Amino acid sequence: MTSDRHDPEGAIAAAAAVCSNWGRWGEDDVLGTLNFLDEGKRREGAALVRRGASFSLSQRFDMNGPQKGWRRRTNPVHTMLDTGADAALGNQGFPHGLGGADDVITMPLQCSTQWDGLGHIFDHGRAWNGRPAEKVVTSDGDLVTGIEHMAPHVAGRGVLLDVGRVVGEDGELPDGFAITEEHLTATAAAHGVSVGRGDIVLVRTGQLARVRRRGSSHAGGGGGGWGEYAGGPAPGLSFTTAGWLHGTEIAAIATDTWGFEVRPNEFEHAFQPLHQVVIPHIGLLIGEMWDLDALAGDCAADGVYEFWLTAAPLPITGAVGSPVNPIAVK
Amino acid sequence: MTSDRHDPEGAIAAAAAVCSNWGRWGEDDVLGTLNFLDEGKRREGAALVRRGASFSLSQRFDMNGPQKGWRRRTNPVHTMLDTGADAALGNQGFPHGLGGADDVITMPLQCSTQWDGLGHIFDHGRAWNGRPAEKVVTSDGDLVTGIEHMAPHVAGRGVLLDVGRVVGEDGELPDGFAITEEHLTATAAAHGVSVGRGDIVLVRTGQLARVRRRGSSHAGGGGGGWGEYAGGPAPGLSFTTAGWLHGTEIAAIATDTWGFEVRPNEFEHAFQPLHQVVIPHIGLLIGEMWDLDALAGDCAADGVYEFWLTAAPLPITGAVGSPVNPIAVK
Amino acid sequence: MTSDRHDPEGAIAAAAAVCSNWGRWGEDDVLGTLNFLDEGKRREGAALVRRGASFSLSQRFDMNGPQKGWRRRTNPVHTMLDTGADAALGNQGFPHGLGGADDVITMPLQCSTQWDGLGHIFDHGRAWNGRPAEKVVTSDGDLVTGIEHMAPHVAGRGVLLDVGRVVGEDGELPDGFAITEEHLTATAAAHGVSVGRGDIVLVRTGQLARVRRRGSSHAGGGGGGWGEYAGGPAPGLSFTTAGWLHGTEIAAIATDTWGFEVRPNEFEHAFQPLHQVVIPHIGLLIGEMWDLDALAGDCAADGVYEFWLTAAPLPITGAVGSPVNPIAVK
Amino acid sequence: MTSDRHDPEGAIAAAAAVCSNWGRWGEDDVLGTLNFLDEGKRREGAALVRRGASFSLSQRFDMNGPQKGWRRRTNPVHTMLDTGADAALGNQGFPHGLGGADDVITMPLQCSTQWDGLGHIFDHGRAWNGRPAEKVVTSDGDLVTGIEHMAPHVAGRGVLLDVGRVVGEDGELPDGFAITEEHLTATAAAHGVSVGRGDIVLVRTGQLARVRRRGSSHAGGGGGGWGEYAGGPAPGLSFTTAGWLHGTEIAAIATDTWGFEVRPNEFEHAFQPLHQVVIPHIGLLIGEMWDLDALAGDCAADGVYEFWLTAAPLPITGAVGSPVNPIAVK
Repeated sequence: MTSDRHDPEGAIAAAAAVCSNWGRWGEDDVLGTLNFLDEGKRREGAALVRRGASFSLSQRFDMNGPQKGWRRRTNPVHTMLDTGADAALGNQGFPHGLGGADDVITMPLQCSTQWDGLGHIFDHGRAWNGRPAEKVVTSDGDLVTGIEHMAPHVAGRGVLLDVGRVVGEDGELPDGFAITEEHLTATAAAHGVSVGRGDIVLVRTGQLARVRRRGSSHAGGGGGGWGEYAGGPAPGLSFTTAGWLHGTEIAAIATDTWGFEVRPNEFEHAFQPLHQVVIPHIGLLIGEMWDLDALAGDCAADGVYEFWLTAAPLPITGAVGSPVNPIAVK
Repeated sequence: MTSDRHDPEGAIAAAAAVCSNWGRWGEDDVLGTLNFLDEGKRREGAALVRRGASFSLSQRFDMNGPQKGWRRRTNPVHTMLDTGADAALGNQGFPHGLGGADDVITMPLQCSTQWDGLGHIFDHGRAWNGRPAEKVVTSDGDLVTGIEHMAPHVAGRGVLLDVGRVVGEDGELPDGFAITEEHLTATAAAHGVSVGRGDIVLVRTGQLARVRRRGSSHAGGGGGGWGEYAGGPAPGLSFTTAGWLHGTEIAAIATDTWGFEVRPNEFEHAFQPLHQVVIPHIGLLIGEMWDLDALAGDCAADGVYEFWLTAAPLPITGAVGSPVNPIAVK
Repeated sequence: MTSDRHDPEGAIAAAAAVCSNWGRWGEDDVLGTLNFLDEGKRREGAALVRRGASFSLSQRFDMNGPQKGWRRRTNPVHTMLDTGADAALGNQGFPHGLGGADDVITMPLQCSTQWDGLGHIFDHGRAWNGRPAEKVVTSDGDLVTGIEHMAPHVAGRGVLLDVGRVVGEDGELPDGFAITEEHLTATAAAHGVSVGRGDIVLVRTGQLARVRRRGSSHAGGGGGGWGEYAGGPAPGLSFTTAGWLHGTEIAAIATDTWGFEVRPNEFEHAFQPLHQVVIPHIGLLIGEMWDLDALAGDCAADGVYEFWLTAAPLPITGAVGSPVNPIAVK
Repeated sequence: MTSDRHDPEGAIAAAAAVCSNWGRWGEDDVLGTLNFLDEGKRREGAALVRRGASFSLSQRFDMNGPQKGWRRRTNPVHTMLDTGADAALGNQGFPHGLGGADDVITMPLQCSTQWDGLGHIFDHGRAWNGRPAEKVVTSDGDLVTGIEHMAPHVAGRGVLLDVGRVVGEDGELPDGFAITEEHLTATAAAHGVSVGRGDIVLVRTGQLARVRRRGSSHAGGGGGGWGEYAGGPAPGLSFTTAGWLHGTEIAAIATDTWGFEVRPNEFEHAFQPLHQVVIPHIGLLIGEMWDLDALAGDCAADGVYEFWLTAAPLPITGAVGSPVNPIAVK
């Protein structure tokens, strides 16, 4: 799939036509490519648990996160309703020495390690499966494809494609690097893994590792040293991978970057054009800001790039995304 | 373990002395009984995936939840930062037909299906491992045992003890029913499962099923028909199970009730006395408001009460609890 | 102005045609009837300060408020970022004995004593001054008539019309009582006050007093004893007062009820029909859930029903309403 | 009052001893120096309304505010529960063409133009009137001196001391400039106003004007061009003004800076030492981040620096501060 750098709208339309899964699972579908993740795939995935080692692929959720206010995305604010201090001072009114602590969080569902729900992106007013965006996602939330529908499904075979390690230098791709189908297949070949129907694919670019390294060398810097991680230049999937994302029939894909696709993208003037094809037309579940480094280190050490992966979104009714703590077990 | 109905404080102190795990995993421990959940247990758990069927054990997170304001616990409030309506109307300013939706949530971490972190309950000013509560959980959150430390660990062998089905009538225990060690072991025997070191035990009382059934028969009732689910009378673990919870060396336990232990409890005047032993002294991870009904139905059908379970808390820095979408796979 | 009980839509259209102020203050107007409140009116109002006694007309903002979840309106949740407990325990890290407390609030802007902004209500897709609702109030807020524009204006002559005291029994109108123009003018006559251009009119029905009295006699009742105050039956302005609200050229009006107009309203099937005329067509500033009882008691005692009134909305950019603490000074 | 630069703790203790108002208004006092603002003062203030011109002294509340995360203070997040877009599209379900918009805010009470409540600052574990901080402000908020108690009181005579204009260059004092009693009295003399018992004094340093001017010349800069306004160097009151603040018996004081007192302060190592005297010992109501520029321009033009001022905090139960939209009328 090639595309005209000067005609993003045409390229998006062409890719959408080729890759569309509208109607594939019926008019009422709310799962998209999660339909590919079936019980057989789960059996295959569970068989990959050999050592029993588990890895969290989540960044921490707190005020030191990457968000800088773009589209009013803030970092999580965590406050206490009760504390150990009040418990110790006898301020709580419980009998017999009981004390307790409770807490509250306020956060955008897109603030850190997350899944994009099917209602997160639209193309020309159309949501997943061809539905009118304005009837799917209103101020009341996603009335049709809310992320709660995905609650039990996201557990299966995970495959790590450490493109940063295979293609990059020192394990990292530079910002603006467009990962093509060739990079993906070469990486899979280098790892000795296959990618196919129903898999959850994790693409590591190395950007998060770089941001962390640079942040820590700028002690005291404002914004927690995140630089432009949230919304700035980044390595990521090329627009041309739309066909691969569709043809492989994977169930989901996630990266260690803010925005999944390469930034700036490959058109003269466009914004997240791959999203515009992948979410509303393919119905693909996309994960962003996953922390793949510990898992990648382990995979590099033992040469095994497949594993059991559970990444269950919180079933927030009507949500167009969810924070998630994905757990890989090898 | 017996206890004097008139002396909760003495009973709590006695149980704490017998069941204490303080120091068992060193002075710096932040995991408590999750230490029991090791790689061998994960291999054992993964081997339980036979069909590949997955079950979400989470209630939905929304304003129709059970909370009624007790200790300022409210239900989640989910609002949109961008909608499909605005996308369809061209209000968003993106090029080439791109549209998007984002959202935000505000919720107590104890509002629905959850894990209690180790900083959630104190006994006479002492937190888990004997630490002073006032230095562990301040207004800045849990500075020592925040739930982020548990991020990669909660995946292993799950066992369902459907006490409601085995001991109750029509699958349900009445409110105020105290589940004893005898009930637990009889249920395990009836199911043909063992419970032991490192297991994640799920105890179904049937209360949630009852609340749902009654709520749906009171259409239009205020508060979504939850009645007293959040904080009222409920079946639950007897205070006398503290020894069993300690001696079995389970890694975690969860119920389908608001508060894990029986309510009202077995003392003349006490509040959540089993919590007071179990969290700060045993260091046990407790789950509450889990929705075990679909899983229980499946277990009743196939007679298999053990499975692979992943129940990863969101790594919210300093949190004393976390919402969770637990996924059981059989 | 009479209206056909069976034809709310026709009645609304007719009233809108008669009462419309669209274009009266130019195409760019963002103030509506606040344009009537000029410097002369402020001089007149300030001259009413005779004793220097001040009255807050605000209910308290906290979790014990009246909201029950309708349209996702909740009561305010107030949490602490720092406390005196942590200060006293030396947990804060400040030098030389300094300690501090900070706090956070999450609340709907319509949760308690408030102003409705001009972007709060639409008629057939039209906002104040005839603008298209979908271009005025998007997910980014009110882009045109946000309440921040009213920041300096709402200070002037206030007039209390205690219809409850003049027309009702024991100072209270029953729920469902429709206050007509005749009631308003009779009350003004009884009080010996005039109402005219630029005034801020406060209409007391007595409902809040009744709700308080009943709540306190139902100690321990759920929901803080508010009953149906938030959205249930209430006394309030008759739909037929639209002409009076327009013709008197008042700047603003507020009541002690949740919804300003009588509930249920006077049509067979309609929802807040007076709002639909008054906000988008007249451009009138409406206040709700004001606590007028202390002021009304003072007015009854000294017979003076006019005063200086400041009721400044918080200039929240793009807000369609604002909590407010109105201050009357006599 | 002089102070040893090397002994902040001693200087604070000495100033506290000299300036203490503990017990002055009885053991149960919750108002502090607001006790000085009596009815006579209000009559005096109202008489200052000559033209009827009104001025809002509030900054706007939105995500473009000055906060940068210090002590977890964020800028306000405003989201919509309903929009004009959904109304226009018929998504709301109201009859007869009615549409509506609602909104929600989450904000620290200290995020922008505000009053510091009496529970905001402690000295060696003591709150206003000598009360133990840990019993006054717990996780449940300020149980004794919550800002709700001030609801009806803050309306009276306002005096602007435009120290920036009188003492500074081009109307602005440089960062780090300590305003002394001499500067205050010289400014009052230059303006021809007196300052005394019960007044609400507004001190303009010009810093906000400078921050705005610089921000606007750095278009596109991150953080909205606020620089270090929230917590960085600033002009402000000298520690040595504690005696003047006490002796003048003013009711309240506010500045156009983040922190009221000069930053860095005049000690080798201290944090907000003047706060530590003024709030817990004097019981003085302090306002911060007020926007005094429009009012100051008017005062410079007509030479009148006194006016009627209403600055009513929202009565948030248990709050240690409140956002406020102060209204000055001349």
